[in-house]
Amino acid sequence: MAQNIYDDPAFFEGYSQFTRSREGLAGASEWPSLKAMLPPLNGARVLDLGCGFGAFCRYAVEQGAADVLGIDISEKMLDDARGRGPGLPIRYERADLEAYEPPPGAFDLVFSSLAVHYLADFEAFVARVTRALKPGGRFVFSMEHPVFAARANPEFVKDADGHMVGAVDDYLREGKRLTNWIADGVVKYHRLISTTINTLQWSGLRLDQIEEWRATDADVAAHPEWAEQRYQPMFLLMATSLDPRLSANT
Amino acid sequence: MAQNIYDDPAFFEGYSQFTRSREGLAGASEWPSLKAMLPPLNGARVLDLGCGFGAFCRYAVEQGAADVLGIDISEKMLDDARGRGPGLPIRYERADLEAYEPPPGAFDLVFSSLAVHYLADFEAFVARVTRALKPGGRFVFSMEHPVFAARANPEFVKDADGHMVGAVDDYLREGKRLTNWIADGVVKYHRLISTTINTLQWSGLRLDQIEEWRATDADVAAHPEWAEQRYQPMFLLMATSLDPRLSANT
Repeated sequence: MAQNIYDDPAFFEGYSQFTRSREGLAGASEWPSLKAMLPPLNGARVLDLGCGFGAFCRYAVEQGAADVLGIDISEKMLDDARGRGPGLPIRYERADLEAYEPPPGAFDLVFSSLAVHYLADFEAFVARVTRALKPGGRFVFSMEHPVFAARANPEFVKDADGHMVGAVDDYLREGKRLTNWIADGVVKYHRLISTTINTLQWSGLRLDQIEEWRATDADVAAHPEWAEQRYQPMFLLMATSLDPRLSANT
Repeated sequence: MAQNIYDDPAFFEGYSQFTRSREGLAGASEWPSLKAMLPPLNGARVLDLGCGFGAFCRYAVEQGAADVLGIDISEKMLDDARGRGPGLPIRYERADLEAYEPPPGAFDLVFSSLAVHYLADFEAFVARVTRALKPGGRFVFSMEHPVFAARANPEFVKDADGHMVGAVDDYLREGKRLTNWIADGVVKYHRLISTTINTLQWSGLRLDQIEEWRATDADVAAHPEWAEQRYQPMFLLMATSLDPRLSANT
C-alpha cells in the first residue's frame, strides 16, 4: 500500500496552494513538453494514473477523447475533480497505483504525471500499464528527475569558488527516500534513468522520446521562480509505445 | 578538428600511468559491464573508434573476430598498439573521429570506449556509425556519465550537515567544457542522457540496453580507489542495434 499523503489535511492544504494545483496544466512548467509527446486524442480511450484534480482528464476530453478513466489514491483530490467536470465522459476511481490493475488491452493512451516516483515497485507497475494498452498504444509520463530525486532533500551548496551548485548524493543507490516536502516524511523512491528505461523496454514498451525538461530564457522571463531549472534538472519525461511502427493511435 | 591532447608528451606520459592504460581492459572498472553488452564476436568485422593502445582490438581477435579496424587520433597510442600485436588481423589507422567516415555497411560491431565526450558533433558522428553498420549490426559504447561530465572539474563539496556530496552544475546546459585532467585545458563536450538517446534513435539505432555503472561492495574490496563510484556516477554505457529483431551478428 502506497503512502496516501495527499489526504493528510495539512499536506492537502499546502499542495492545493501550488501554482500547478490552482492553475492546472497551465501552471505546470513541463506541460508543453509533455503535451508535445502525446498522440492524437480524438476518439481515444485514455487512462490517467495519478490524476489528482483531474486537469489532464478534462484536457483529454477537450481534445476529443471518447472515454477517460482517472485513478488516484486521494479521495480529497477525486472529490474535487468530480466537482469540476459533471457531465463529462470521465470516470474517477480511487485506487492505489501499487496494486491497481486496469482493464487489459483497453487504452490508446496511459498517462501519468509526477506519480511514479511514489511507487516502490516500478517493474510491476509498468507490467500492468503494458497490459492495459491496445496494440500501438502509448504510455506517456513524467517523473521527478533522478538527479533531483536521488537526494532526499535536494539543496544547493557552495563550491570552492563560492558558486552555488546542486548537491547530488547517492545517485547510484536506488530505493526509498524520506523527504520533507510540504509535510515531513513523504515517501518517495529513487531509481536511475537507466533502470527506468530498461524496465520499460523489458516490459515490451519502446522508448520513443525522452526529455530532461529545462526552462528557456523566455520561460524564466515569464516565471522567474523557474530560474534554477535552466541549469538543474527537475523533471524527466518519456514517451513510449507498444508498437514503434504505428504512427497514430487508431 | 578535435583536440589531440593524447599526443602532448606530458599528457601521454600521465595517461600512460593510469591503471587502465597499464593493465588494459582488466584495469577498467566498467569493462565487465561493457563486455556483457557485446554480441558474439566470432567471425565478426569490428571497428573500434578511439582504440587507444588497442586493448579492445586485441580482445576482439581473441574472441574470434575476423577483421578489426582500430581508429585513433593519437599517433603515439597507435604506435604503441601496433607494437603489441604484430601478426594479428588488426589494422590501425590514424584519424579524427570528428570527420572519419568508415566504409559503409561493413561492420557487425562498432565499439567506442570513453571517446564520444570529446566530440563536438555527436549527431554527425552517430550518422557515420549508423552508415558503417551491416543490417543488424551493433554500436556499443561508453562515455563519461553526464552527471559527472556536466561540471568542467568534478568535485565533492560539503552539504549543510558536513557530509560530502557531488557538486552538479549546469547539467542542463550542454556544450564545451574545459577540464583540467592530467593537463590543463582538455576539451570535452557535455550532452544530456536524453540528447544522447534521442540522437541515437533518430539516427536509426535502437537502444537495447543502458547502464549507469556502479561499483559493488566486492569491486570496492578489490579496488578501494573505486569507493565513491558506489554512489556517484562516472560511466554511462549503451548498447544499440540497427535491427532489434536480430539476435546475433551473422
